Amino acid sequence: MLNHKDYSKLDTNELKEHYEVLNEKYDGYLSQNLSLDMSRGKPSAEQLELSKEMLNIVSTHDDLHAEDGSDCLNYGVIDGIPEAKRFFSNMLGVSTKEIIIGGNSSLNMMFDAISRAMLQGVYGGAANWGKAPIKFICPTPGYDRHFAICEFFNIEMILVDLTHEGPDMDTVEDLVRADDSIKGIWCVPKYSNPEGITYSDQIVDRLASMDTKAKDFRIFWDDAYTVHHLTNTPDPLKNILTACKEAGHADRVFMFSSTSKITFPGAGVAVLAASEDNLNFIRKQISIQTIGPDKINQLRHVRFLRDLDHLKLHMEKHAAIIKPKFDLVLNKFESELGGKNIAFWNKPNGGYFISLNTLDGCAQAVVSMAAKAGVKLTNAGATFPYGQDPRDRNIRIAPTYPSLTELETAIEVLCLCVQLVSINKFLIQAV
Amino acid sequence: MLNHKDYSKLDTNELKEHYEVLNEKYDGYLSQNLSLDMSRGKPSAEQLELSKEMLNIVSTHDDLHAEDGSDCLNYGVIDGIPEAKRFFSNMLGVSTKEIIIGGNSSLNMMFDAISRAMLQGVYGGAANWGKAPIKFICPTPGYDRHFAICEFFNIEMILVDLTHEGPDMDTVEDLVRADDSIKGIWCVPKYSNPEGITYSDQIVDRLASMDTKAKDFRIFWDDAYTVHHLTNTPDPLKNILTACKEAGHADRVFMFSSTSKITFPGAGVAVLAASEDNLNFIRKQISIQTIGPDKINQLRHVRFLRDLDHLKLHMEKHAAIIKPKFDLVLNKFESELGGKNIAFWNKPNGGYFISLNTLDGCAQAVVSMAAKAGVKLTNAGATFPYGQDPRDRNIRIAPTYPSLTELETAIEVLCLCVQLVSINKFLIQAV
Repeated sequence: MLNHKDYSKLDTNELKEHYEVLNEKYDGYLSQNLSLDMSRGKPSAEQLELSKEMLNIVSTHDDLHAEDGSDCLNYGVIDGIPEAKRFFSNMLGVSTKEIIIGGNSSLNMMFDAISRAMLQGVYGGAANWGKAPIKFICPTPGYDRHFAICEFFNIEMILVDLTHEGPDMDTVEDLVRADDSIKGIWCVPKYSNPEGITYSDQIVDRLASMDTKAKDFRIFWDDAYTVHHLTNTPDPLKNILTACKEAGHADRVFMFSSTSKITFPGAGVAVLAASEDNLNFIRKQISIQTIGPDKINQLRHVRFLRDLDHLKLHMEKHAAIIKPKFDLVLNKFESELGGKNIAFWNKPNGGYFISLNTLDGCAQAVVSMAAKAGVKLTNAGATFPYGQDPRDRNIRIAPTYPSLTELETAIEVLCLCVQLVSINKFLIQAV
Repeated sequence: MLNHKDYSKLDTNELKEHYEVLNEKYDGYLSQNLSLDMSRGKPSAEQLELSKEMLNIVSTHDDLHAEDGSDCLNYGVIDGIPEAKRFFSNMLGVSTKEIIIGGNSSLNMMFDAISRAMLQGVYGGAANWGKAPIKFICPTPGYDRHFAICEFFNIEMILVDLTHEGPDMDTVEDLVRADDSIKGIWCVPKYSNPEGITYSDQIVDRLASMDTKAKDFRIFWDDAYTVHHLTNTPDPLKNILTACKEAGHADRVFMFSSTSKITFPGAGVAVLAASEDNLNFIRKQISIQTIGPDKINQLRHVRFLRDLDHLKLHMEKHAAIIKPKFDLVLNKFESELGGKNIAFWNKPNGGYFISLNTLDGCAQAVVSMAAKAGVKLTNAGATFPYGQDPRDRNIRIAPTYPSLTELETAIEVLCLCVQLVSINKFLIQAV
């Protein structure tokens, strides 16, 4: 019985023997021609069903005026109808004056926020960000699409470790105090992608109050999973805008969120929240870019999601579908990899991901070995800027999209690959 | 009887006498506390009704997969579902590979196209447009929001006259041949905003074939009114992409359009059409900006508008509503201003506007006089870059939104103001 034995303590013969057994199993999967995709954090078809009623909620004979009388079918209303602002301001704990409603993509709002800053700076800033080279702090592992935006705009990325309660703040504080070309930091503060951790109050306060050499520094607060709990005891997250105001830095933060994983990823509503001064500055710019986002879809969302109580019930239905998938992965990890000292993972209370860390130098080999057996994972390195994981150990697991049966097979394959690659590493070290 | 007398031939006494009569009428309107808005080209509530059926066309129990199997509710499909590409490619006379579907705003797609070019250049270009000062040619009068985009990006605008068949091409050709900082030209080629003219074949060919010193020159072809005819004998417009290909400049044009004035301004679908090389370049950039636009709304549009035949029938319903409004304005102009040699206008075969040219130096006075009487018109000068009409004579009339009754009153007030301001001008000249 080799389960739960610390691999690092096995001798060469034991390792070889074990490798044979596992490799035979792997060969078995190879012959099955699997085709399983666990690469992106997508809701499953069953989850999408939860919101399909929303498609009928705004129909031909309904009144399609917003509560201020705006005709949602016609032009106008640059920053969202009042009832949508109210709903999202409640969700994010800000005032209705601190909300701008966008189109269907919060990523697009983040991209545009940086694009505008590159060309015209931010509120209170002296110059546009594109004038001289700039840098962003990227807590890692993190969200690949954030890093891709930095790459697009030639923004240098500085890696900072993400601890179990948020970014390593000693390092962050030292960096921003010393260098005025550091203009921003990416944060996924709740059930972070991919680690699943939530920032502690202390981290939120330190981010809000730290001294930054750049007077136009901004926190990009991607609160994508703010209501996406997996348990009845959700992680609390301190309100960053309130913390920034209290620290005298009301304009420091841009908060983003969306309904992509509440209703439909393909047809949701995204929001930006920030201080009124920030938003007045941005609203002027947006009014050059568009006459206004889709207001009918805002109306659909508000009439469907209604209020925070109803939203909570709705999110519990999501949790009922995805919690068993998270449990399956975590149980498999425990039974296949537990105690072997070759892999380490978090147990998130919400969000869309489980982050698996292998031994250093093994992640790429594991991902390509799994791919060979028909199990597609997020590219190794994707959770780091430029796709380069310095320790080549992080693998992002997205358990929501596949069925439980598919997931079980995929994780079995993954666990086999982790063991085989790890044994290989030990054997090479032993030579 | 002073109707249809050439005002420029009246003597001072006749002018004064006439002024008294008209001014009394104007005072009558002043006391009515009117509140009529003709400032923006918005469809009327009656027009919006034509598409409300679309809201029910995609509902809870429908199959919400695109024809290639993509789930329209979920993530993915960066540039549009196949059936939407087919519909819009038919509408614009390009191939399905030459279409990218966007969100609800073509203005947003134009803004983003320039934003990307400023930061990263265009396909085949040597450097990004933001590296050195650049210029755009702006045929005038034109669309204020195009000019606002240039102003936002600090792009210098060069005014060129719009003739009855398109931009003054002798001037355009001379400009672009000589100056490589001229990177673009704004065109509303069909039922132009505000002149209502359609470019002739010859103009399209000259735009496609002209020599440009800038190798990365682009035509921004805002084909907003491509199917928005008012008569049974629509203006023909030569296909600019085909013309550019034939002239060996396949990459020269970005075409834009949307359903804002086909279905809903607040919840339509926008498109960009261009050469495959252009789109391959742009698609890579867009994939950093967003995971994809709202696909459900694409599905709604395709299932509602179906094909070109059905689109034609749908647009005829729009025409049936707005043609009487155009006729009313034109008839009033003829009866109140005709033959007086104080105002000049086009009779468009489609689109959303009638362009009224007063005597030089009168437009601002007319607009503010009308505003005083409760009739809100588009700001004088708005149809020119920086809001400055060099001859202060152009007034854009947007007849679609008000009811016929409101419109009649508004145009009566407008015609009174034109006459009063014109007489004033003659009287001052006579002093």
